[in-house]
Amino acid sequence: MSNGDIFVGEIIGTAILILFGAGVVAGVLLNRSKSKDAGWIVIAFGWGFGVLAGAYTAAPLSGGHINPAVTLGFAIEGTTEWSEVPVYVAGQLVGAFLGAVLAWLVYYGQFALNRDDKLRMETLGIFSTRPEINNPVQNLTTEIIATIGLVLPILALVGGRRHVAGIGDAGIATLLIALLVVGIGLSLGGPTGYAINPARDLGPRIAHALLPIPSKGTSDWRYAWVPVAGPLIGGAIGALIYNAAF
Amino acid sequence: MSNGDIFVGEIIGTAILILFGAGVVAGVLLNRSKSKDAGWIVIAFGWGFGVLAGAYTAAPLSGGHINPAVTLGFAIEGTTEWSEVPVYVAGQLVGAFLGAVLAWLVYYGQFALNRDDKLRMETLGIFSTRPEINNPVQNLTTEIIATIGLVLPILALVGGRRHVAGIGDAGIATLLIALLVVGIGLSLGGPTGYAINPARDLGPRIAHALLPIPSKGTSDWRYAWVPVAGPLIGGAIGALIYNAAF
Amino acid sequence: MSNGDIFVGEIIGTAILILFGAGVVAGVLLNRSKSKDAGWIVIAFGWGFGVLAGAYTAAPLSGGHINPAVTLGFAIEGTTEWSEVPVYVAGQLVGAFLGAVLAWLVYYGQFALNRDDKLRMETLGIFSTRPEINNPVQNLTTEIIATIGLVLPILALVGGRRHVAGIGDAGIATLLIALLVVGIGLSLGGPTGYAINPARDLGPRIAHALLPIPSKGTSDWRYAWVPVAGPLIGGAIGALIYNAAF
Amino acid sequence: MSNGDIFVGEIIGTAILILFGAGVVAGVLLNRSKSKDAGWIVIAFGWGFGVLAGAYTAAPLSGGHINPAVTLGFAIEGTTEWSEVPVYVAGQLVGAFLGAVLAWLVYYGQFALNRDDKLRMETLGIFSTRPEINNPVQNLTTEIIATIGLVLPILALVGGRRHVAGIGDAGIATLLIALLVVGIGLSLGGPTGYAINPARDLGPRIAHALLPIPSKGTSDWRYAWVPVAGPLIGGAIGALIYNAAF
Repeated sequence: MSNGDIFVGEIIGTAILILFGAGVVAGVLLNRSKSKDAGWIVIAFGWGFGVLAGAYTAAPLSGGHINPAVTLGFAIEGTTEWSEVPVYVAGQLVGAFLGAVLAWLVYYGQFALNRDDKLRMETLGIFSTRPEINNPVQNLTTEIIATIGLVLPILALVGGRRHVAGIGDAGIATLLIALLVVGIGLSLGGPTGYAINPARDLGPRIAHALLPIPSKGTSDWRYAWVPVAGPLIGGAIGALIYNAAF
Repeated sequence: MSNGDIFVGEIIGTAILILFGAGVVAGVLLNRSKSKDAGWIVIAFGWGFGVLAGAYTAAPLSGGHINPAVTLGFAIEGTTEWSEVPVYVAGQLVGAFLGAVLAWLVYYGQFALNRDDKLRMETLGIFSTRPEINNPVQNLTTEIIATIGLVLPILALVGGRRHVAGIGDAGIATLLIALLVVGIGLSLGGPTGYAINPARDLGPRIAHALLPIPSKGTSDWRYAWVPVAGPLIGGAIGALIYNAAF
Repeated sequence: MSNGDIFVGEIIGTAILILFGAGVVAGVLLNRSKSKDAGWIVIAFGWGFGVLAGAYTAAPLSGGHINPAVTLGFAIEGTTEWSEVPVYVAGQLVGAFLGAVLAWLVYYGQFALNRDDKLRMETLGIFSTRPEINNPVQNLTTEIIATIGLVLPILALVGGRRHVAGIGDAGIATLLIALLVVGIGLSLGGPTGYAINPARDLGPRIAHALLPIPSKGTSDWRYAWVPVAGPLIGGAIGALIYNAAF
Repeated sequence: MSNGDIFVGEIIGTAILILFGAGVVAGVLLNRSKSKDAGWIVIAFGWGFGVLAGAYTAAPLSGGHINPAVTLGFAIEGTTEWSEVPVYVAGQLVGAFLGAVLAWLVYYGQFALNRDDKLRMETLGIFSTRPEINNPVQNLTTEIIATIGLVLPILALVGGRRHVAGIGDAGIATLLIALLVVGIGLSLGGPTGYAINPARDLGPRIAHALLPIPSKGTSDWRYAWVPVAGPLIGGAIGALIYNAAF
């Protein structure tokens, strides 16, 4: 894979991920949406199938990491060259920003109405994660453990070491990883909204800060380091466990 | 594939798609249905598994496009001959019409009751899409982006250019595409009800206009161009991105 | 496959199907169940994953039909010998009866409480299907169309005629068929509760009539022919369409 | 597989299972969680995708049993050596304990709030199973039948006897088993909360007894034998049926 392919692939894949992910939250939260109040099951499957679509679209170009924590894990594990890491991460951030813009365009009318509506709300939660209980140490712990729960299974499935024959076939592996992300959302998303991906949080937060969204409220930059640091630490720990045990 | 096979395959596949898709909305909206008020998760999975059933049934005959936007995408990409496009689209429209008739027969008693019932409702939303906020430019934008989110991943999965080994195996690919459609429904369906398929909207709208459905209300032909034009534009853009990037 | 294998396989597979299927409805309807009122999505996935478990368990012994309408479809299509049909159907009926007994044992305490409870209810709907609107012609139509929607896709996937390479691999095919059944439940189950399988309805109805279930109410034998005849007619039509088109 | 690999694999896999499983229940039950009151569908899919993640992570090291009832089944069936059984079970118990600690850390803030909150609750149900109706014979019967419904399909899928070609491919098999567990939860979980795994219940119960959880209430050791004995009996019966019929 050339650096150009990686960069383009990660832009496309991460844009699709965030289009679906920010989209599902917009649909559940904003008024005048058919999926209004559709519940946590909808959010978890929406994000998970965003991973599915983004990862298998990007796969032929970049392998479909679409997450700096996954890229870091593959670098520690050895599949990804360290020199490629900045290319991956740059593509992921650009893609996440673009995906947030696309999701905003899809729900443009609903966002516009959020200005006038009596039920108007702050919109940051559509773009980026917000903890239910604001406590950086707890929130960081949650993100670290949840990201170990993402990166260690991914490496066990498609990493370069020991394998079960057939378990890592590309189509099935992508599906298993997408359902893994659904599971993380269902199981570990309650406290912080499961960033588990620095680009997924930072790119849309930048979009939130820049876009002319009505009633948008704060972009909460004080919290922004947690969903970046937590997933990176978790991804590193997950890869170290993999390297030690497999 | 002969033109006859394509035509028959697309009729059967699209009829199954719309039988399931119109069926799930009928079940959720109409009174005296066991799935009454079962929520957006039911609608999104019902449509997605309609794609699953329709696409893999049609696959041996026509490849299972069951969507003019997908056919247009494959024509731009090069897999489908331009001369076959009218055959595909004709089969899709006939199939979508037939599927709507079948769904109406399945829920015939529930439709009949909709005449007398105090809770009677207009039924167009069972057959065709309706925007939550009526604004053609916004609605068109939503349908274009959502259809890019359909056609670009499909081409990345089964198009003729770069591939990851194994990712496009027929059974898995059909499943991944069906789950992609579930994801589009969950994430991008809120504003317009996600036509993302001109035949899915136009065929059932014609059925709605022609069938003797009680209390059916308007067939809203003024909106009908949006769920035709939007998906076609989105499908074309998705294919152009694919051709440029892959 | 010997007749003995077919008989045993179909008993085991259909028992598992009905254990899951009657179980999920019991859990949603009866008091003092953790899944009480869990909604239509739970019922549709419970039945669908019952098909998954039953079909792949029976597959090595009998091919995993677990449904006389499917067996009839395979006989018309040609994969199954007509002489084997009675063996399949006998196994399916015995298995369905046993599965209903097992589901009753799993929820024994909840059934027992249904005697005393102020919220006590008739229990036939846990075992067999009941139409929302009692009209034999409408109900038969619904079951016929829904079963065409079952048998035609199954034959397209695993029948002996035209195929797409890889689409019928056993593991994936079983999964696709299970999700097809989830889809039928979500989309076409509203009016009659989707028997789409004569054994699924008749076996548990016999169990309901024989078992000492408190407050059980009528076994409604007047309706019992509809969920037998409808699926058989639909299965035959589905197979004839398959033979004509593929 | 060396005993060391088995032990480490089962620790990792079972820890992931319980992290997801206890996590999803914590998220649904505790206040200040985004998944609060998200319903039974969320719980069943959360546990099922915990099986998915745990089993495919452990697969290269230990085969991914992550359940003493499954290990017992494979020992009776013959795939697993009896001498390896204690290694498996020890790893599973250690892993289940660790997973419960991790889930508690993920929801630490929510647990802490459970001290002060007016809506505070006993937390045992997050860690271990509790019957809706306390009757050991009924509860044991439920667990036995539900575990037969787990182990018999697993053996039919990946046991050493008769097979359908392709049905046991590792990736697909893991997915089918995970969806089987979702199905068991949806269908058979109502009365007892479906332990179907002695380690899943006992390990977290020990964690519940030892951890400094606010307002935790009793660890209910009087019930603890049922979710150990029931699954072991069910696993043995499932394996004996498999050996007899396949």
